[in-house]
Amino acid sequence: MIVKHGMNSGFSSLASSAVLRRQQFLIRSLRGYSDHTYQKRMEGMKCISGGASLEADSENVLRAIIPSLDPTGHKGQAGKIAVIGGCREYTGAPYFAAISALKIGADLSHVFCTEGAATVIKSYSPELIVHPILEESYSISNVDDEGRRYVSQKILAEFDKWMERFDCLVIGPGLGRDPFLLECVSKIMKHARQSNVPIVVDGDGLFLVTNSVDLVSGYPLAVLTPNVNEYKRLVEKVLGCDVNDQDTHGELLSLCKGIGGVTILRKGKCDLISDGEIVQSVGIYGSPRRCGGQGDILSGSVAVFLSWARQHMLATEGKPIISPQNPTVLGCIAASALVRKAASLAFEHKKSLEAICPAS
Amino acid sequence: MIVKHGMNSGFSSLASSAVLRRQQFLIRSLRGYSDHTYQKRMEGMKCISGGASLEADSENVLRAIIPSLDPTGHKGQAGKIAVIGGCREYTGAPYFAAISALKIGADLSHVFCTEGAATVIKSYSPELIVHPILEESYSISNVDDEGRRYVSQKILAEFDKWMERFDCLVIGPGLGRDPFLLECVSKIMKHARQSNVPIVVDGDGLFLVTNSVDLVSGYPLAVLTPNVNEYKRLVEKVLGCDVNDQDTHGELLSLCKGIGGVTILRKGKCDLISDGEIVQSVGIYGSPRRCGGQGDILSGSVAVFLSWARQHMLATEGKPIISPQNPTVLGCIAASALVRKAASLAFEHKKSLEAICPAS
Repeated sequence: MIVKHGMNSGFSSLASSAVLRRQQFLIRSLRGYSDHTYQKRMEGMKCISGGASLEADSENVLRAIIPSLDPTGHKGQAGKIAVIGGCREYTGAPYFAAISALKIGADLSHVFCTEGAATVIKSYSPELIVHPILEESYSISNVDDEGRRYVSQKILAEFDKWMERFDCLVIGPGLGRDPFLLECVSKIMKHARQSNVPIVVDGDGLFLVTNSVDLVSGYPLAVLTPNVNEYKRLVEKVLGCDVNDQDTHGELLSLCKGIGGVTILRKGKCDLISDGEIVQSVGIYGSPRRCGGQGDILSGSVAVFLSWARQHMLATEGKPIISPQNPTVLGCIAASALVRKAASLAFEHKKSLEAICPAS
Repeated sequence: MIVKHGMNSGFSSLASSAVLRRQQFLIRSLRGYSDHTYQKRMEGMKCISGGASLEADSENVLRAIIPSLDPTGHKGQAGKIAVIGGCREYTGAPYFAAISALKIGADLSHVFCTEGAATVIKSYSPELIVHPILEESYSISNVDDEGRRYVSQKILAEFDKWMERFDCLVIGPGLGRDPFLLECVSKIMKHARQSNVPIVVDGDGLFLVTNSVDLVSGYPLAVLTPNVNEYKRLVEKVLGCDVNDQDTHGELLSLCKGIGGVTILRKGKCDLISDGEIVQSVGIYGSPRRCGGQGDILSGSVAVFLSWARQHMLATEGKPIISPQNPTVLGCIAASALVRKAASLAFEHKKSLEAICPAS
């Protein structure tokens, strides 16, 4: 149990270790309830499948993959993330995804968006590097087909200058559904695959992928993070049937296999994570609020933890000290656990008027 | 030892002195650890060369060069700094450099950047004076060579109106690598030299200087602040060899001499500072985080302390009460010490979730 371990046994033994301060910081954030409260909360949250709980050992996953804070490290070694999103309508979603990556612990966080969105996203925080390179149909309405091909190639060339530097891309938060923009992003995804750069697909990126499954099909470094409706559309498109609530895990396994071994994080009361081989669940109590933006925060967090899990695999030469061993699954487990716990702590804090109006 | 002196002996004797409030404020920020903790931290950070430590006496440097807060002073006397940087992609870096100059204690902080960047940087803070005068190739793509010469002369003329007012320029944070923009900035650097205005070169400014060493060669008021990779490129270009980790100090002395006596602050586990005559190190424990932006904060801080060190030289008529006596070296020592200490205190504070999540 995360909280129990986090507060008592395993965690306290870390306290004196200098290079484990980042673990300490993030695992501490999994605290916050007394064991009793936590157990009570968990009663309603257990994820049972055929009687067997598949609850992931989130704390040990976090403990294993979070890199140490080594004073000899250099800028960038803790992760360089890029979010592809931000258009005429949306600027908040890509900001939430990109700033979450920095707050989790990445060293650099970029956003690739349209020019109008860039000015606004830059103004949200000087910590993000924002590239105003994407174009929407309305901004090239006077351009002929030849001109559109030129614009598209220029966008791709500008992105390719940066691609190899990134440890993971997040595609979709605030992307919108403009046909020309989505066509360019499809090409960016193909280049990312050729360069073996992992991609986390959320929001409008899932709309794109559901209509063009081949963009991620057979790519083991792709992670999809659908909510209830996005999952429903994926099942209908790939499995050609309605969602089956009687065999949740079997269906998720089939869907991952159906898309050629991608990893799916199905968001819900419990988050379910599968790569087509195993299913793990994260049932840590989150927040009952369902306001927009929480999915964006999760997608940016998955990108960082996925990058760290891949570093861990390299460092242990494919002999990781943790199971499961698929870095995309490990990244999803860590991000789901941390974001759900952060949401529950934020809710507990904000709902309590003591914070702003001390009891008299 | 900074903390010991700062907390106990020397510092307490300052407490009653009104005109020394700024010293009090900044030197206080060098506190934060008990002597024991501080000594423990320093164990791993000592900078030894041939058995001899070259650790600078940072506190006494700060004590000597920080101007008194004299009620009869006027706006501008504590420093007028200008940052040249901010383009289509970058707005955070010049903001961090410029706002740091103000927070250290400069009276006025300006930014010279492109029009698009100016709107965003102005929105970060009303305390900065932002000049939207720079142009990038894409914004003058329809202009012929004659027109480009005119634009270039116009930019230089606009900058020259301000140049003489500045105590120091910071060239590079978020400058980008656009050829036309860098060509204009090269001319600005030449004018700064003619006017004997000190220049601190960081980020993309180091890319420019490494390709055109003559821009700073033989200019004693130039300070370069390279990180590991920027230092490597400088050594390859100027000394024509790879970095030699066996003779760090000798190599740094040679590099400074090779560029005609400029001052170099080599950032690393310990910061090493040299003007080709001496090498000093600052090993105060900083932060193990390597997120972007920390170099920008340092460059703005060097600019202010360098200006104050030059004022100190004038006030003491070349008979300063401190050694070393090169104001560029003094400015680097003071900025390195303060920024590293600030980073360690920020990390200690932020890593502790007690601030937002009291232990239950």
